[in-house]
Amino acid sequence: MDIDSTAQDKARFFAGAWGRVRALPGKLKAKVTSTAKSIKKVGQDDPRRLTHSLKVGLALTLVSLLYYARPIYDGFGVSGMWAVLTVVVVFEFTVGGTLSKSLNRGFATFLAGALGLGADYFASLFGKNGEPIVLGILVFLLAAAATFSRFFPRIKARYDYGVLIFILTFSLVAVSGYRVNELVVLAHQRLSTIIMGGATCMLISIFVCPVWAGEDLHKAIASNLEKLATYLEGFGGVYFQSSDSDGMGTGKSFPQGYKSILNSKSSEESLANFARWEPGHGRFRLRHPWKHYLKIGALARQCAYQIEAINGCIGSDHIQGSEEFKGKIEGSCTRMSAECGKTLKALAISIKTMTDPYSSANTHVESSKAAMKDLKFALKAASLENADLAAILPAATVGSILVEIVKCVEKISEAVHELSQLAHFEKETVEPTVSPEKPPQLLHRGIIQPVLDGDSTANDNVVITIHEIISTDSPENGKACDQHQVPKPGQKIEAL
Amino acid sequence: MDIDSTAQDKARFFAGAWGRVRALPGKLKAKVTSTAKSIKKVGQDDPRRLTHSLKVGLALTLVSLLYYARPIYDGFGVSGMWAVLTVVVVFEFTVGGTLSKSLNRGFATFLAGALGLGADYFASLFGKNGEPIVLGILVFLLAAAATFSRFFPRIKARYDYGVLIFILTFSLVAVSGYRVNELVVLAHQRLSTIIMGGATCMLISIFVCPVWAGEDLHKAIASNLEKLATYLEGFGGVYFQSSDSDGMGTGKSFPQGYKSILNSKSSEESLANFARWEPGHGRFRLRHPWKHYLKIGALARQCAYQIEAINGCIGSDHIQGSEEFKGKIEGSCTRMSAECGKTLKALAISIKTMTDPYSSANTHVESSKAAMKDLKFALKAASLENADLAAILPAATVGSILVEIVKCVEKISEAVHELSQLAHFEKETVEPTVSPEKPPQLLHRGIIQPVLDGDSTANDNVVITIHEIISTDSPENGKACDQHQVPKPGQKIEAL
Repeated sequence: MDIDSTAQDKARFFAGAWGRVRALPGKLKAKVTSTAKSIKKVGQDDPRRLTHSLKVGLALTLVSLLYYARPIYDGFGVSGMWAVLTVVVVFEFTVGGTLSKSLNRGFATFLAGALGLGADYFASLFGKNGEPIVLGILVFLLAAAATFSRFFPRIKARYDYGVLIFILTFSLVAVSGYRVNELVVLAHQRLSTIIMGGATCMLISIFVCPVWAGEDLHKAIASNLEKLATYLEGFGGVYFQSSDSDGMGTGKSFPQGYKSILNSKSSEESLANFARWEPGHGRFRLRHPWKHYLKIGALARQCAYQIEAINGCIGSDHIQGSEEFKGKIEGSCTRMSAECGKTLKALAISIKTMTDPYSSANTHVESSKAAMKDLKFALKAASLENADLAAILPAATVGSILVEIVKCVEKISEAVHELSQLAHFEKETVEPTVSPEKPPQLLHRGIIQPVLDGDSTANDNVVITIHEIISTDSPENGKACDQHQVPKPGQKIEAL
Repeated sequence: MDIDSTAQDKARFFAGAWGRVRALPGKLKAKVTSTAKSIKKVGQDDPRRLTHSLKVGLALTLVSLLYYARPIYDGFGVSGMWAVLTVVVVFEFTVGGTLSKSLNRGFATFLAGALGLGADYFASLFGKNGEPIVLGILVFLLAAAATFSRFFPRIKARYDYGVLIFILTFSLVAVSGYRVNELVVLAHQRLSTIIMGGATCMLISIFVCPVWAGEDLHKAIASNLEKLATYLEGFGGVYFQSSDSDGMGTGKSFPQGYKSILNSKSSEESLANFARWEPGHGRFRLRHPWKHYLKIGALARQCAYQIEAINGCIGSDHIQGSEEFKGKIEGSCTRMSAECGKTLKALAISIKTMTDPYSSANTHVESSKAAMKDLKFALKAASLENADLAAILPAATVGSILVEIVKCVEKISEAVHELSQLAHFEKETVEPTVSPEKPPQLLHRGIIQPVLDGDSTANDNVVITIHEIISTDSPENGKACDQHQVPKPGQKIEAL
């Protein structure tokens, strides 16, 4: 039997090898198809990538003309090379990136060129033998100091490339071995070709299908809020409805878009850095408060962390919560997350349309806070005698984290409101038309706090009458709803 | 009174202005001092920054000698410039960064130079008039295609700089307007100076106080685990002890070191990218599984998200949990977080010392899982009739998230174990000496599940006898402790 199986193995091996050889052309074909697909995907993910590539090609071809237009070539000679070099190195995806690099390069070249000339002159005072030593020391000191300055976060963020070019130009000029009067001509040629290359890049990046870093940041923040909103709006439905089937454990039906927010910090920061270099464009003025977007981004990340924690809790496949308890908190939890979702959606729309979010978002914030208080009452009301705390816990934890999310969403709402004031968003004119298609909604479905037979340490037991308030989406309603949560004398109100 | 206050305001204003003028030299001094302080801080945060700056200065000075050593200068002429350029652009903080850029630059220059020569030859076939047009088209196409390729994540991660230099060199060579035989000389000069500059950088970065990206990644991952451990080890003490004072709400006493882990993804990825370019160094061989560190890093981030959620819950200043209930779960929760912390610390040490973590970490993983099950029993045992669920919730949520953390830590432990196998960590030889100074510790403090008068849907009520098992830090103990959690027939065990 052992020999038999070895023979079989061998036969299988050779069959497999032959199959692989025969499959080679097919594999090559598959490889080509997959490469073509990934090229298509990269292009489709962001069609501006294709435009950008064509723009770089265009800029480079334009600058190359320097070499073919005799009159220009005679003026600049080999220095024309610097124009090509500048275009390749300076042309970035966003306008802000291109501007930042061009301006950094221009100023750094000018400054370092002047300093280099000075250093050359200074060194020449030391005579034929002293000159190289003095120049060597100067280059060493300046290069070391400038390199060290690149470790400062502020310089790193804005002038990193400038410092690099500064070291480069200073060393080249100081060390080149030309005499000073020759150098001035050379420096002039080089600076003008760099300016020419930089200007070509700037003009093309601004006027041919521009990609504004500021606009990207603006859209990225709005879309992050939308991703959070999508999760939260769908959350209640998926979590509470799917509990009877086994679909809940897998957590597959929850949209996972929010995960991209978790690691969004670095890209947001670089966009904000670039955005500061950009001139006013579209709806954004020159001094648009770009830095404030980072604040909203950080809060959105905070919210995403909470969602990640929820996802961790409900993703654990062996949680079997008490259905009875889940049913009790379903209403308030679903409303909390739905209202948070609506708030975030309203904020995202307000950022997108650049209108003041106050009335539209605030209604939902108030509703979500009301729902949060409802949850508290539902928790108080839940009869616990016959329930197992371990079975209650998963759903209770979800509720508890949702409370944190409500707070986080409120902060986001405040931050967006601040942004709207800093950036002079338009005021909304007609308040009641925020979402006219929405049917009037019961804010409080009426929760009765039963008389518990507990010990009297913490809670006076109060019977609360049923309130049914029809929401018409104005911030006053939220306040009206809050009225029944005014503490009765002697009753301790614990917010969750 | 109104006039009076205006006069006072004026007087105050002038006094203030005069004070500000007088304070100018003082302000300048303060500014200088603060700058000096920040310089000192940047240097002290990582002393290797200073070394790096000096190394760049050294490399640049060495390469500049090209211009002064007559025999070399006569050989290369102005092309010596490319050596300076290469040093400035290529010298990175880590060895891997420098190698990656040097090699990218070298190969890209060679390839693009050859292609450029080909393009020049090809274009010359079209005659005097056709040549610039053909060259223009070629440059446009190649630049556009190469720029587009930079959007592919794999190329972006490893060959971004190479592609840039490829475009640069190709354009320069194709467009330069030299005849082909002149170009060959030029290309040869340029390539050799670039190699010279690159080699200087590589040698200095490898042999003068090298900063290895791989070692940095290795240390960063270990220190991240340690930060998590510090939080978790201290957590129980701070959270449960401070509850009687008002210090809990502020959350100030929790170490906030873990926050830096939340956004560690990009830096870890770039380190891992650079590490792949590095030769074997110190305890790391050439094909060290650097990619696997990213997996551990991702799990550590996952754990940090959970901690962030906990921090959110306990940071809310208006939570007033039930002390009674907190007391009931204190034991198991404190043990869970402490054991998780110990696990992580053991894993961090095992990474640092490159020894197999199996026995040391596994003991703690088992203990934390045992504590997790204890928590379940504690929850079942907690008498809920007289407690308010809203008051219980904060502590219960903390417990519930801790359970998630235990699972996450277990995954981290598995990942580190995998790493230890992939990277051939040394096996531990003497098992019991892992932490000999630690006093024997009660793993289970004996939790009695009382007979509850609940409904009989879910739980058969079982009286569990008290176990007191002295831990001697061997994995078998964990199993022994688990024995009392073996389900009785008919009893449903729900893991948290």
